[in-house]
Amino acid sequence: MDRAHLTAGSSSTQDGTKDGTSGFSGYELDLDLNRAIDLIRKSGAQLVGLQAPEGLKRAMPALARQIEKETEAKVIISGDPCFGACDVDIQLCGAVDLMLHLGHAELGDGPENVIFLEARMNEDLKEVAAKAARVLKAKKVGVTTTIQHVHKLGQALDVLKEHGILGSVGPSGGRIAKAGQVLGCNYSAARALDVEEYLFIGTGRFHPLGIALATGKRVVIADPVTGDVSEIDTDPLLRRRFAAIIRARDAKRFAVLVSKKPGQERMEMAERIKALGEACGREMFLVYLDNIEPDRLVNLGAEAAVSTACPRVALDDAAKYRIPILTPPEFEIMLGESKWEDYRFDEIE
Amino acid sequence: MDRAHLTAGSSSTQDGTKDGTSGFSGYELDLDLNRAIDLIRKSGAQLVGLQAPEGLKRAMPALARQIEKETEAKVIISGDPCFGACDVDIQLCGAVDLMLHLGHAELGDGPENVIFLEARMNEDLKEVAAKAARVLKAKKVGVTTTIQHVHKLGQALDVLKEHGILGSVGPSGGRIAKAGQVLGCNYSAARALDVEEYLFIGTGRFHPLGIALATGKRVVIADPVTGDVSEIDTDPLLRRRFAAIIRARDAKRFAVLVSKKPGQERMEMAERIKALGEACGREMFLVYLDNIEPDRLVNLGAEAAVSTACPRVALDDAAKYRIPILTPPEFEIMLGESKWEDYRFDEIE
Repeated sequence: MDRAHLTAGSSSTQDGTKDGTSGFSGYELDLDLNRAIDLIRKSGAQLVGLQAPEGLKRAMPALARQIEKETEAKVIISGDPCFGACDVDIQLCGAVDLMLHLGHAELGDGPENVIFLEARMNEDLKEVAAKAARVLKAKKVGVTTTIQHVHKLGQALDVLKEHGILGSVGPSGGRIAKAGQVLGCNYSAARALDVEEYLFIGTGRFHPLGIALATGKRVVIADPVTGDVSEIDTDPLLRRRFAAIIRARDAKRFAVLVSKKPGQERMEMAERIKALGEACGREMFLVYLDNIEPDRLVNLGAEAAVSTACPRVALDDAAKYRIPILTPPEFEIMLGESKWEDYRFDEIE
Repeated sequence: MDRAHLTAGSSSTQDGTKDGTSGFSGYELDLDLNRAIDLIRKSGAQLVGLQAPEGLKRAMPALARQIEKETEAKVIISGDPCFGACDVDIQLCGAVDLMLHLGHAELGDGPENVIFLEARMNEDLKEVAAKAARVLKAKKVGVTTTIQHVHKLGQALDVLKEHGILGSVGPSGGRIAKAGQVLGCNYSAARALDVEEYLFIGTGRFHPLGIALATGKRVVIADPVTGDVSEIDTDPLLRRRFAAIIRARDAKRFAVLVSKKPGQERMEMAERIKALGEACGREMFLVYLDNIEPDRLVNLGAEAAVSTACPRVALDDAAKYRIPILTPPEFEIMLGESKWEDYRFDEIE
């Protein structure tokens, strides 16, 4: 087969995290399997690893069979959760000759034997862009999306132009692989633009929330799967974050969470946060962990936590935890080191 | 402090896995913290890792503070679950100069910068051994326990002798650190003995079940925490395992689970199982994962699984899973490669 057409069972955002707000199920993804087979043959790899986010996991056993049929290699599938290109399975990388990481674009650094096979969504962007054009207020608009749609961004820009709107696209660079792309943890492609308003094309509300918080501008969401167009409101999140900061202020014992995931590990920042907390009379301890789950923190007896891992842990998963979990900038607000008025989104460069 | 006296919040069996059957909470553990402080100072370690099973996790933040106070080192706590000495946190080992692994005895191989600090339970064994003596039927009895009690095994042997029973203790060796010790995955210290009956001193039912299945002999359990003495019955487990084998026989697509945990990884066995299944017309795929959880297997679309990880995954956690999970010997029975009558417990050498 030339390209593998996968039907994904659930949402798979660019950074692979779950998407509470988008209820669609089943869409076509386009994966360049021929390139993968070719790379395996050329490399002479004997043992190949296969990793994918939850929405693509179900496709892996068939891909494994296909690879074993068409090459000499044996395949091992990564069974642990995968939340993005930040979450390459390091132990599997060490165990195999070549690793295929599906559905995400490369972040920039990481193990050398990993090949990133992006999964493209086939949805057309014209219709939803036309619908969005009627909701946009500005004439200069920053256009952003996630990796599955980035190859069709030109369609959206053309449609906006027909409606008299000048769409511009921020640059790639750092952990951003493609122009116009945003990650849950990085909005540099939005921040780089001098525009009055943003259009986010994609699913879920976390990325457009990030754009709004990172830029302070109005953000319109166009969902190419459901066809819905809406506007982001940062107030509910900000109210919840304010409450979390107030709750954490009463805690004496803080866990500072450091992720084992290669693209989420910020050990130096964690050490700085620990020193800062101790200087302000708090008990601080560093905790190194892979998947951050509520029971992990309960067993350690932490009264509050600061997460230096993916910003979604603190911002998107807060309801799962009995204790308040802050981002590093929020912890600085809590200690009075910075002001609530200067709230900033926790981005990973 | 000379020795740290920790109050553990829940059961911590020798191999650290959860103990559904023992309902006690809170007991004193004895840890040689002075030795640890000394080793850290002598090694000049700048960064020290700290890992413990769930029952000891709550003690780690205070230990971390103590170490940071008494040495020059900074401490990082492992936040992931820990199920035994088989489950050393490899990524944390790589990130620190020295790693203290609490509550388990060394398995024999693994990273060189790990120091195992066994946690000893202070419970006296005399009373419960006397109670067990009245339930034992044979005059030659094999005596086994887990690492927390192994230093007090002499007490039990003395009491048995007073009751006219010759207790013997199997040798250490391989992954068994101390004479008389058993692990959830290894009963060599029991199998080595030529006795008619076994006494297991410890908590939980998994270890004595393992002894009974590995030796085919009667096993009496003496729980030094609750003071209860009982006898193991293997029939309920064997009936459940027979049912699992029958259910798995209808499955076409099998996941072969390979653990990332250094002391549970059996890749060669997994490859053999995969080849065996394929030769019998099944679809087989290898899955490499850290903590084996039900949702991992659901997302991959497996209809059944063979676990080459800790035998407890298949035997003790079966109720958590919607699909049947077999041990490698059970899979061989399923395929007709061996007989049900020759059922053997899946031990890791």
